[in-house]
Order: sequence, then structure tokens, then C-alpha cells
Amino acid sequence: MTRRRQSEGVVWEQEALTRDRRQELLGHRGATVWLTGLPASGKSTVAAKLVVALAERGVNAYRLDGDNLRHGLCGDLGFDHASREENVRRAAETGRLMADAGLVAVVSLVSPYAAGRGAARCLHEDAGLPFVEVWVSTPLEECERRDPKGLYARARRGEVAHMTGVGDPYEAPESAEIEVGTDTPADAAVELVLTALAERGVLER
Amino acid sequence: MTRRRQSEGVVWEQEALTRDRRQELLGHRGATVWLTGLPASGKSTVAAKLVVALAERGVNAYRLDGDNLRHGLCGDLGFDHASREENVRRAAETGRLMADAGLVAVVSLVSPYAAGRGAARCLHEDAGLPFVEVWVSTPLEECERRDPKGLYARARRGEVAHMTGVGDPYEAPESAEIEVGTDTPADAAVELVLTALAERGVLER
Repeated sequence: MTRRRQSEGVVWEQEALTRDRRQELLGHRGATVWLTGLPASGKSTVAAKLVVALAERGVNAYRLDGDNLRHGLCGDLGFDHASREENVRRAAETGRLMADAGLVAVVSLVSPYAAGRGAARCLHEDAGLPFVEVWVSTPLEECERRDPKGLYARARRGEVAHMTGVGDPYEAPESAEIEVGTDTPADAAVELVLTALAERGVLER
Repeated sequence: MTRRRQSEGVVWEQEALTRDRRQELLGHRGATVWLTGLPASGKSTVAAKLVVALAERGVNAYRLDGDNLRHGLCGDLGFDHASREENVRRAAETGRLMADAGLVAVVSLVSPYAAGRGAARCLHEDAGLPFVEVWVSTPLEECERRDPKGLYARARRGEVAHMTGVGDPYEAPESAEIEVGTDTPADAAVELVLTALAERGVLER
């Protein structure tokens, strides 16, 4: 097998790109950050700021959220229990692939069931990829007060079935790495996640 | 909104990371390269070499193939017509997400039906993302002669249902950007793909 030396000083001794070599090239590991919480709890705000903060630090990060999954990869799914679990499963698998590719996947999904979130964590841990669960714990009353899409109001009128917090349960995480309460501004939440990623070797401290 | 100037000279004027800003940061666009062909035609060999060649050029690329999809994201699917189309659909959606994230997704899938491949192309073109279809056109006789996994032999004995080329049809592409025949060595095929990616602004020429 030929060895090719490139201007970057990277020497390839085999044809396949291993995770180690990819990491060497990118200068960091991949990971998945999993934001869970009620609708309108503030997950997307934290996710968007986190992706920018990581980009500023030279780490390519990408959001996987309801919008870009439900309109594509998960467009065939409904909102019943089985469909929601499948939605979470596919998000977890996609996050794992992205993390394996060296990105920080920022999953922002209600993901109301502990089982699905636990499976997402196992999937990453089994693959040797960091997984940071962030519980955006804004209480129901506050989420319902915000209600930017009017979903809670519609659910209360019986127009939306399976609305988490109204018709469907939200199982609060028991072992999330980070809890983001209403008293934690989004920028402070981002700092907490960056610290957790640094502790896992995804970012330099 | 505060403006933060970083050492890279990148100025963030908004909280969300647009595709343009991401591209600026990475120094290149994302894209999907779609390798289609019979089982044992040589898709994986080209895919593996392509990922390394892109990495050597500073472009993060990632393989999406039967192995990493069927054991995860598509692990719930069988091999009947509908399942195979769904497999291709999910690979296309995942490729689109990765391409949007600035990676070069290298999809290596038999993807025997023209409709599924056409849908994958549309998905990317609608999103303004380059899509390069590569037909690895090794003839059936040669694939069957290689048969590294013994799948053709098993299919001929009736032990494998829905085997493309034996029990199931392969619809040859009519508008693939690149055809890789048996007379094209894998390294030459990689060069053809790199040229196509350069023409689409994914790589510098």
C-alpha cells in the first residue's frame, strides 16, 4: 500500500479513514448534545446559540430538530407513542452518524419518554461517542404562557392530539448531565454545555 | 445583538448559523456523492478511497452505506421493494442533512430503482446542494464471479430473496454524472469524482 504524505503532514497508512485519523485531522472529537424538554421550553434557542458558539471555536456542529427531521427523514411518522419513539430513534441514529463523522450533533427534540432517551445514550456510549443530555426544565405553566406557536391553546381546545404536557406525559430525566431552568439564560446554558464538551475532549478547555 | 470578532476573522451578525457562514468557516460547500451499482460491483472500494482522498484535501467526508445504515437507522427495514425504497429514502435524507452540515456524504448503496435515486437527487437539488451520481457499472457476470460475501451463490440456491441481479431487477441509471466501468481503476474513479466536486465548488480546482 502506498503512503502519501500531504501538506498537512498527515500520513495515511491504510485506505479507510478511521475515527482516530479523522479526529486528528479535525482537531477534535465528535459528540451528540441532546436537548429534551416540553414544547416551548427553550430548547431551540439554546441549540441555535450552541451551534454558533461551537462554530466560533472551530467545531462544526449541526442541529437536528423537529423541523428538519419531521420535514424529511421522519416525514412519514405521526405523533402516537410508537411514532414518537421511532422519531427519537432515528434522531439518535442520525446523531450517532454525525458524531462519528466528527461533528457535534445538537439534537433538539421534546423526546418525552425516558426509554427513548436512554436508548439514544446507550447507542452513543456503545459506539464510544460522548453524549451530553441537557434537560431544559422550564415548567409547563411557563411553556404554556409563552406558547409561540399556539400549540398549547389548540391542545386545550382539543384540536391537537398527543401534545406533550397536555394529552401526553413528559417523563423528566433523572440523570441528565445538565439542567437548564428558567433562571438560566440561554448564553449561560451554552457555557455549561461547552464545559461539558471540554471535559469530554470535544473542545479544548 | 452583540457582534463578536474571532481569531478566524469571522464576524457573526446573527444567532443562527447559515449555510453560507458555515461554508465560509469550512472553506468549502457540502455535497452528496451517490454510488449505485450491483452488489460486489466495487462501490465500497471507491467510497472508502474517496473519503480518504477528500480528507487529504481538508474536506470532511463520511460514508453512508449498507453496513452502517442497516445496523442502525434502517435496522427496522427488510428487503422487499417498499423497504428498499424506504432504505434509499432515509439514506438520501441523511445525506442531505450531512451535505447541509458541510460534509461530503458518500452514499454507497445498491439503490436499484431509478425512482428512489431520482428522488434523492431532487431532494438535494431542491435544497441547493450538489448531488453527484456515480454508476459503478460492473456487469452482473463479473460481480457474480467476485461474490466476496457468497451472496450470489446463496441467491442462486434460492436462499436469499430479493437479491438484486438475481431475483430483483437493477434499473441502470440514465443520467449519472459518472460511469465507472470495470476498466476504470478505483483511483481513477476517485479522480473523476474529485473533478466533478471541483466543478461544483466543493473542492478547489
